Amino acid sequence: MSDRFDAAGYGEIPVGFGERLAVVVVDFQLAFTDPTYQAGRSPHIQRAVVNTAALLKVARACDVPVATCHTAWSSERDMIPWKAAAIRVGMFHGDPATQMDPRIRDAAYDAHFVKATPSIFFGTALVPFLVKSKVDTVIVTGCTTSGCVRASIIDSFAWGFRTIVPEDCVGDMEESAHRANLLDVGRRYADIVTSATCIAEIKRRARKQPDTQGEEHATV
Amino acid sequence: MSDRFDAAGYGEIPVGFGERLAVVVVDFQLAFTDPTYQAGRSPHIQRAVVNTAALLKVARACDVPVATCHTAWSSERDMIPWKAAAIRVGMFHGDPATQMDPRIRDAAYDAHFVKATPSIFFGTALVPFLVKSKVDTVIVTGCTTSGCVRASIIDSFAWGFRTIVPEDCVGDMEESAHRANLLDVGRRYADIVTSATCIAEIKRRARKQPDTQGEEHATV
Amino acid sequence: MSDRFDAAGYGEIPVGFGERLAVVVVDFQLAFTDPTYQAGRSPHIQRAVVNTAALLKVARACDVPVATCHTAWSSERDMIPWKAAAIRVGMFHGDPATQMDPRIRDAAYDAHFVKATPSIFFGTALVPFLVKSKVDTVIVTGCTTSGCVRASIIDSFAWGFRTIVPEDCVGDMEESAHRANLLDVGRRYADIVTSATCIAEIKRRARKQPDTQGEEHATV
Amino acid sequence: MSDRFDAAGYGEIPVGFGERLAVVVVDFQLAFTDPTYQAGRSPHIQRAVVNTAALLKVARACDVPVATCHTAWSSERDMIPWKAAAIRVGMFHGDPATQMDPRIRDAAYDAHFVKATPSIFFGTALVPFLVKSKVDTVIVTGCTTSGCVRASIIDSFAWGFRTIVPEDCVGDMEESAHRANLLDVGRRYADIVTSATCIAEIKRRARKQPDTQGEEHATV
Repeated sequence: MSDRFDAAGYGEIPVGFGERLAVVVVDFQLAFTDPTYQAGRSPHIQRAVVNTAALLKVARACDVPVATCHTAWSSERDMIPWKAAAIRVGMFHGDPATQMDPRIRDAAYDAHFVKATPSIFFGTALVPFLVKSKVDTVIVTGCTTSGCVRASIIDSFAWGFRTIVPEDCVGDMEESAHRANLLDVGRRYADIVTSATCIAEIKRRARKQPDTQGEEHATV
Repeated sequence: MSDRFDAAGYGEIPVGFGERLAVVVVDFQLAFTDPTYQAGRSPHIQRAVVNTAALLKVARACDVPVATCHTAWSSERDMIPWKAAAIRVGMFHGDPATQMDPRIRDAAYDAHFVKATPSIFFGTALVPFLVKSKVDTVIVTGCTTSGCVRASIIDSFAWGFRTIVPEDCVGDMEESAHRANLLDVGRRYADIVTSATCIAEIKRRARKQPDTQGEEHATV
Repeated sequence: MSDRFDAAGYGEIPVGFGERLAVVVVDFQLAFTDPTYQAGRSPHIQRAVVNTAALLKVARACDVPVATCHTAWSSERDMIPWKAAAIRVGMFHGDPATQMDPRIRDAAYDAHFVKATPSIFFGTALVPFLVKSKVDTVIVTGCTTSGCVRASIIDSFAWGFRTIVPEDCVGDMEESAHRANLLDVGRRYADIVTSATCIAEIKRRARKQPDTQGEEHATV
Repeated sequence: MSDRFDAAGYGEIPVGFGERLAVVVVDFQLAFTDPTYQAGRSPHIQRAVVNTAALLKVARACDVPVATCHTAWSSERDMIPWKAAAIRVGMFHGDPATQMDPRIRDAAYDAHFVKATPSIFFGTALVPFLVKSKVDTVIVTGCTTSGCVRASIIDSFAWGFRTIVPEDCVGDMEESAHRANLLDVGRRYADIVTSATCIAEIKRRARKQPDTQGEEHATV
């Protein structure tokens, strides 16, 4: 379908994978992945959890940095005015809904952050971790596509990272919101791919790692 | 229409106007408002320029802080990887496409910022200006709804401001993208209103200003 | 003593207290306040803990927002390259050295943040908390004056807050470093006062609070 | 001299140069480098300008990213409360005092930013530029050591970059303030070296660049 976005060349220039990848995981905490909670009942999010778990297994095996986060605050005093009832209750530090989904987190490997706002980059030390790890490409996973994932994609792009979104690793309450947001970000900020593509790119770099490492040591 | 968002109470709790308002204007520069440029040919954006100009006239008369911005960079070296061809050419410092639309800017009144990324809050000194001005409520205007406006709304919310979007003061290339994004942000971050409502709220506070000012001076 | 700073008018213009105050407390965690730890043996820091505890008691009684923090990270992977041996060991999430000094924290009242870098403002959701609380004046306490306190003072100023430092509520390893840093920041960013002055200013505003509140409600 | 800092191992662990260097230049604008202005009369700053110009010549020849900045604001409305009289006058956008020293800037090469606060990293798009350029090591130059340079060093460290300060490329109003600040940051955040060391490290990497580049292309 041709429209004004096409006429102005939106989405025309692919981002591409760079040299050093990282995987960031947005809000796969029980509030959104456990059916006990009202916001945790979306099959579309369950699909994303399963696919992200598989992606993370490869990432960790290949020494790719992984950052996870959950959303929480100290009290109503420091909670910014979320309009969603489901988000405003039970998200205080220590609440069960703030715990990470056990399918996702590896406490011994991942860098974990607590956030209070939509983006995993906002009000966290994620950028320092990525800079220190010399990452140039961020693979964004998590939920929800039309909320905290969208915000994290914008920020990943804004901070200067090549930004890649495996479509099957981000989930939403409703598929229509999921699709509309991937359309927006695919036009401007990020490449929309599959987890299979991400896994292949991670493995390809892992095989080359030894030579790269040697070269790097030589230059330091 | 009932869906999972409704079930989880998204959009249930209105934000409301606070005590001190500011108007921020995103990217009403010639690249997006002048038909000379490929991205400047959307009637939907023209509508937003006209309505924002009227809103700004009232805001300035009532001493409401106004912040404007344009997008630009020094060279290809510091341009992050925008996927849109229309954005990657002619947006260097000093280029005509980076000049503000004359219907919008009042150089003697507005605080003006240069940005290189989607959000007017990102990589600018906007937050210090709002904090110093004791603003608690940010009215977001500009273009495009599905791009830099969406990013600015998320950040306004994240920084802790009550965030208000006059629907007729934000414009897009395509109305479908405009509507989808207002739906997303109205569920989570911001109240979607009209410019008429914003003008009324600004005028109402202006009438009360003298008393408030007296009270403040007494407490300092 | 007259010097080039004086000639250029550094320190000439006082900041002054504004309308709404907050107290932020930097790094009063066991690593720096408990003699069990190498960095926790400075009498100058103990003095600051005692004076800050007294200031916080008044602040909480007067409904002044309080923000505390501790420094910690997930692992060596996300620890930035601190040059100090004492900081690089035992500061992982959950370690005893990351626990707040019991004289300082009130978990039911304070907004608490985890940071990984010098400033309490960096990589935390402190600014959103202060914005939401309509704070215009930040009183900075904690340790060490020549390290994380200095960084926090700069950021408080940069974010647009009036910044006040009660000299007896910030502590250091060595008094010479303490004095040199207060001289620097007093010339540029912040007023250097005593905790007695801060307590008096907090109490004075608290007495006026009922009227102010009434006025505010009327304007909304 | 042994003290509590030494006992706690401050300054013990050197940072070291990484793989990809950048030079950032803080505030070498006429306000601070031209004797026409009150703050521009320090011989210590003149020394730093001359040495930085020499360093930049090598950096540009070796394709090392260079970022410069000047401090300015739109009006008193968006100027945060600097306590120094010399900074509060004549620093508005377009004022002569905001122009870069001609010995320093190369408009065709450098990424240039406008800042309103002490640190070159704060409220600018510097981090995205460094991330996009895959920089892991930031060489900080400019003025003044005890003001905007100190703030920039802290932020460079906080963002996760290896931070290097060539002592002869940063200048101050008074040498005592210069020395005290280098002592503080050398204990915690940055290696204090000379411009000769930086030039040697830049040249050494430049000679290896061709091979590294080939290796990188192979892995992408």
